[in-house]
Amino acid sequence: MKNNLYYPFVSLSDEDIFTEIKKEREDIGYYSLPYVDTSVIKSRLDNLDFKQKQIAIIGIGGSTLGTYAIYNFLKYNKQRNKTLKKELFFFESTDPINLNGTIAQLNLEDTLFIVISKSGTTIETISIFKYLSSIVKMNSQNLLVITEDDSKLNSFAAANGISTFEIPKNVGGRFSVLSNVGLVPLYLAGFDIDELLKGARKISTSFFEQNELYNQLLKKARTYYEYKDVYNINAIFSYSQLLEGFNKWYIQLWGESLGKIDANNTNQGLTPIGLLGPVDQHSFLQLIVEGKRDKTVTFIKIKDFKDDTKIAPITLEGLEDLDYINGLNFKELINLQADATIASVKEYKKDIPIDLIEIEEISEFEIGKLLFYYELLTSIVGKFLRINTYDQPGVEGGKIILKEMLKKKN
Amino acid sequence: MKNNLYYPFVSLSDEDIFTEIKKEREDIGYYSLPYVDTSVIKSRLDNLDFKQKQIAIIGIGGSTLGTYAIYNFLKYNKQRNKTLKKELFFFESTDPINLNGTIAQLNLEDTLFIVISKSGTTIETISIFKYLSSIVKMNSQNLLVITEDDSKLNSFAAANGISTFEIPKNVGGRFSVLSNVGLVPLYLAGFDIDELLKGARKISTSFFEQNELYNQLLKKARTYYEYKDVYNINAIFSYSQLLEGFNKWYIQLWGESLGKIDANNTNQGLTPIGLLGPVDQHSFLQLIVEGKRDKTVTFIKIKDFKDDTKIAPITLEGLEDLDYINGLNFKELINLQADATIASVKEYKKDIPIDLIEIEEISEFEIGKLLFYYELLTSIVGKFLRINTYDQPGVEGGKIILKEMLKKKN
Repeated sequence: MKNNLYYPFVSLSDEDIFTEIKKEREDIGYYSLPYVDTSVIKSRLDNLDFKQKQIAIIGIGGSTLGTYAIYNFLKYNKQRNKTLKKELFFFESTDPINLNGTIAQLNLEDTLFIVISKSGTTIETISIFKYLSSIVKMNSQNLLVITEDDSKLNSFAAANGISTFEIPKNVGGRFSVLSNVGLVPLYLAGFDIDELLKGARKISTSFFEQNELYNQLLKKARTYYEYKDVYNINAIFSYSQLLEGFNKWYIQLWGESLGKIDANNTNQGLTPIGLLGPVDQHSFLQLIVEGKRDKTVTFIKIKDFKDDTKIAPITLEGLEDLDYINGLNFKELINLQADATIASVKEYKKDIPIDLIEIEEISEFEIGKLLFYYELLTSIVGKFLRINTYDQPGVEGGKIILKEMLKKKN
Repeated sequence: MKNNLYYPFVSLSDEDIFTEIKKEREDIGYYSLPYVDTSVIKSRLDNLDFKQKQIAIIGIGGSTLGTYAIYNFLKYNKQRNKTLKKELFFFESTDPINLNGTIAQLNLEDTLFIVISKSGTTIETISIFKYLSSIVKMNSQNLLVITEDDSKLNSFAAANGISTFEIPKNVGGRFSVLSNVGLVPLYLAGFDIDELLKGARKISTSFFEQNELYNQLLKKARTYYEYKDVYNINAIFSYSQLLEGFNKWYIQLWGESLGKIDANNTNQGLTPIGLLGPVDQHSFLQLIVEGKRDKTVTFIKIKDFKDDTKIAPITLEGLEDLDYINGLNFKELINLQADATIASVKEYKKDIPIDLIEIEEISEFEIGKLLFYYELLTSIVGKFLRINTYDQPGVEGGKIILKEMLKKKN
C-alpha cells in the first residue's frame, strides 16, 4: 500500500519546529541580541556624558513599548534606592492635548531628546520631533538618534552632527527591546543592561541547549496552535501594576506577530489581552469565569516584592469584621489574591486552560528573562501557524491612504 | 396544521426587547440617574467646603473606573483653563510598590480622602484605607465615604462623624458613574456634573422616545448577538489618549455584564478590547487587518480637539521627503490617521464589521452621552443574550477562597 500526501501542509513535530527555529536564528536578528557586548554602547554613552535629568523618547510602537515595559517594572525600586539617574517620558501620540500635557511635565531645557524610528520616516515620530524642534533648540548636546544605518533620519543626524545608535536591519521593531532601542535610554537612566541581557541569555540557553524550557515552550506553543479555533484569545493576568508596561508590550508582540495570512491564504491570529490583578478581578474576571470558553489565561506573580508595607493592625468601629486582614503585608495579600483566583479557576472551572509564571523579584535579570521568554514563545507559535512572524504588511494600506490624503491637503 | 414550540427560548423581536428594557427600567437604578436633581449634592459639598488641593479616591473597579474615564477625558482642558479645582489620584491596587508610588505623589496633609465601596467591605479598599489611616490622621475634615446606606463602611462613618453619600442598592458598581460615585469627586474637582447628566439624558430620551437611537442601538445590539460565535471580540479603537480611561471603563462594563451563564446554562460572553489610535496602529492593527475574522471594531473620533498645535513648517536636512506634513494641525493629523485606517478596512477588508462614533468636542456633555450610550447598549445586548446583565456571581468563588486563606493565616 502506498499513500502520497499532497497536502499543502503536513503536521510538524517538535523536532521539525526546533530545526526551523534554529535555522531562522541565523537570519532573524533578535535571537543574537542577548549576546551583544555592551561595552561599546556604554563607553560611547559615558563619553557623551549627558547631564540632563530627564529623557524624552520620541517614538511609537516597537520603539517605545519595550523600554516602557522595563522602566515601568523597575522605576519605583530605582527611585527608592536613589539610583535612578534620569526620568523617562514618552512622546508617542499625535493627540495634541496629550502632546501638550506631556510637554507640561518636562523642563525642556533640562531634557535629553532621543528620537527612535527604525524606518526613520515614522510619521508620528517626525511630526512630534518637528514640533519639539520648533520650541526647543536641538543639537548634539541634547539630542540622540536611534535608527537604521541608511535611513533618512540617519542622514539628518549625520548632516547635523547628532550621535546615532544603529537598529540592525534584521531586528524588527517589536523584537528590538534588547537592541540599542532599549539599551541606550535604559543605560542612561541608570539601569543594569548587562543583567537584562544575562536574563535573556539564560532563557535562550535553556531553550537552544534543549534544557528545561525546550519541552515547556514547545508544549505551550503547540497547545495554543492546536486549540486556536477554540481558544482564540490569550489573556495575561499580571498581579502587579509594575507589569502594566509588560502587558502592553506583550499585546504588540503577540498581536502584530501572529495576526497574519498564512501560507494557505487563511487569516490566522491569536488575540492578546493584558489584565492587571487585583484590579481586573473587579472587571474582566467575571468574563473569564462565566463567559464563553474562548480564552487561555497566563497568571504572572512576583514572588518577592521586597517591600514590607503592612496593613495597619487597627480596628475601625463598624468594620471590626475585617480585622482578619490586620498586620498582613501587602506583598502577601496581593499574592494570596492571585492564589485564590487561580485556585477558584483551577478547581472549579476545569475547561479554562491556565498557567502560572512566577517572577523571583523586581530586577533587570528577571524582566530580561520574561521578555525573551515571550519573544521565543511568539516565534515558536508563529512557526506552528506557518506565518511570517516578523513582518506587518496589514498596516501598509492605511499608511498609503494617509499619505495620499496628506499630499492632497498640502 | 399545528406547530407547538417547546423551545426554552424563542427569538425576540425588537419590540420584545424594548418592552423588556422598559420593564427593567423600573427596577434597575442606573436608568434614572440622568434625571437626578444635583442641587442637594452640590449644596452639601459646598457646605462641607473642603480646602484640599488633592483628592485621593480609595476604591476599585466600578468605584473608580467611571470617574477616571471622565477625569482623564477632561482634565487637560480644565488645567489649561485653570478651572481644575482639585487634582484626583486613585488608590486601587494592593501592589505595595504602586501603593507607595502613589503616596509619594501626594501631599498627604493637603489631601481629601474619599473611600468608595458599594458593599462597604471591599478588601482592597479597606486594606488601603487602614494603611493610609495609620500614616495620616483621618477625620471629618479630610475624609468622605460613599457606600450603601446599611453597609459596615457606613456604620464606620456614622460612628466617626464622617459625611457619607449613598450608592443606591439598585445601581451596580459598573453602572454607577452617574451616581454619587462619580458626581461627588467630579463636582469637587471642578467639573460640570449637570452637563454630564444632560448628555446622558439626551441619549436616554432618544432611545426611550423611540427617536434616532432606538433603531440604531437595537440593530447594533442584535448584530453583536447574532454574530456572537463568529465575532466574539468587540474592539473599541479610540483616536485620542484622552479616551484611555473610557476604554478601561468600557472593558469592565462589557466584560463583567455580558460574561455570564445564560438561562440555557451556556457560557455566554463578548470580549471587550480597548485600543488607542494612532499608537495601536503600530501594535494591534495588524491583527485586525490580517488576523482571524473574530472582531468587530468601533472607531471613536473627537471631531474638534479645539487645539491649534501645528507641526512646525521646518525642513530638516535629510528628511525633506516628509515636508508634506508641514504646517498641519495635530488635531487634523490624528483624525486623518483615523480616516485612513477606517478607509483601508472599509474598502479592502469587507469582512470586518466596523462602525464609527464621532464625539463633537471635549466636554462633560459629550462624555455623558458616550457613557450612557454604552450603558444602554450593554443592557440591550444582555437582553438578547438572555443573561442577568447586572450581577457578577463568577467572582465570588475567588473571594471565598481568599477569605479562608486569610483567616487560616491570621
